[in-house]
Amino acid sequence: MIDDDIQLAESPREAEGGIRNQIMVAANAHFSRYGFAKTTMTDLAKEIGFSKAYLYRFFDSKQAIGEAICSQTLGGILEDVMRVSATGSAMERLRALFRRLPELEAELFFEDRKLYDIVACSAAEKWPSSVAYCDRIVDLTRDIIIQGRESGEFERKTPLDETCRAIVQTMQPFVNPLMLQYNLDLLPTAPQEVTSLILRSLAP
Amino acid sequence: MIDDDIQLAESPREAEGGIRNQIMVAANAHFSRYGFAKTTMTDLAKEIGFSKAYLYRFFDSKQAIGEAICSQTLGGILEDVMRVSATGSAMERLRALFRRLPELEAELFFEDRKLYDIVACSAAEKWPSSVAYCDRIVDLTRDIIIQGRESGEFERKTPLDETCRAIVQTMQPFVNPLMLQYNLDLLPTAPQEVTSLILRSLAP
Repeated sequence: MIDDDIQLAESPREAEGGIRNQIMVAANAHFSRYGFAKTTMTDLAKEIGFSKAYLYRFFDSKQAIGEAICSQTLGGILEDVMRVSATGSAMERLRALFRRLPELEAELFFEDRKLYDIVACSAAEKWPSSVAYCDRIVDLTRDIIIQGRESGEFERKTPLDETCRAIVQTMQPFVNPLMLQYNLDLLPTAPQEVTSLILRSLAP
Repeated sequence: MIDDDIQLAESPREAEGGIRNQIMVAANAHFSRYGFAKTTMTDLAKEIGFSKAYLYRFFDSKQAIGEAICSQTLGGILEDVMRVSATGSAMERLRALFRRLPELEAELFFEDRKLYDIVACSAAEKWPSSVAYCDRIVDLTRDIIIQGRESGEFERKTPLDETCRAIVQTMQPFVNPLMLQYNLDLLPTAPQEVTSLILRSLAP
């Protein structure tokens, strides 16, 4: 017979996840105040009240904590854009995707600049969290292009992979956090105009 | 009667230009060794053997010297791409423009990294030299689009200014020195694919 209390109790895995999360929250607060570059693992251990050895049981390095924070942040952005671009014609979905992505990243820039800097750093140094983000944007784009090719909205002559790659390259100034920070004054018009250019290129 | 010797002698204006040029050459060499950020006007005056006051007669600030060096460098790149993209069909000219621009900037990156860094810094901080470079690229693009619209190669429905702006935005990852440095591994394929996308968007 299984006891409900036992079922509700945290498994060691869950407990570990909880601690990892606590570390990420505390580290994020610390980075937000002092910046990622200036923080050391010693600072973080002191701030959280852990020994350095205990901290290293959960994260190999400061970058690993930065990675985890980035993954969480970028994952949140992706969830939102996936919802926003989930339905409608392929054209509408593409417009929604490339309207919402720069919008959310710009929000992050203005609301939590230090966190944005970590994300921009992850893009510059091509951390796995950032590469995964970029790959997911390519996947989302591919999904929309396939729908548009099937419905007859988009041309089918250009190899699918080339089309997707070129579209995501084209949106880089507004979607890559490293580049967006220099283009904030161009929002929302410039990404709209580039999306229109992309849609013209997709005409059958 | 005008004496030939007098004609050949330097005017005060020419002499001044010569000194400005000497300062730029010496400053560029100094920046190349020690970096732009770490150099001060005092360092430059010492290096060139001028008093600081004399140096200030020619340039208001270190940035003014950086600006002048940037203008010269970017001017050289523009001259080359203008020559390369001067003739042919509008399609050929557009391809030539966006093939040659990233190529020349990448050459600069690999051959004189410190000078590239000044140029990238000028793009990040939107110095006049960099804004002028960008404007010239828009002008070159407009010139080609007009030819293509007149010859019937390109569509004429989209407002000309919007088309030009969107095309240059689209090429930013490979044309803006600040961004190109993160995309060097994508040359030459990615800018070619983006140019193909642009050309599809221009189809009548």
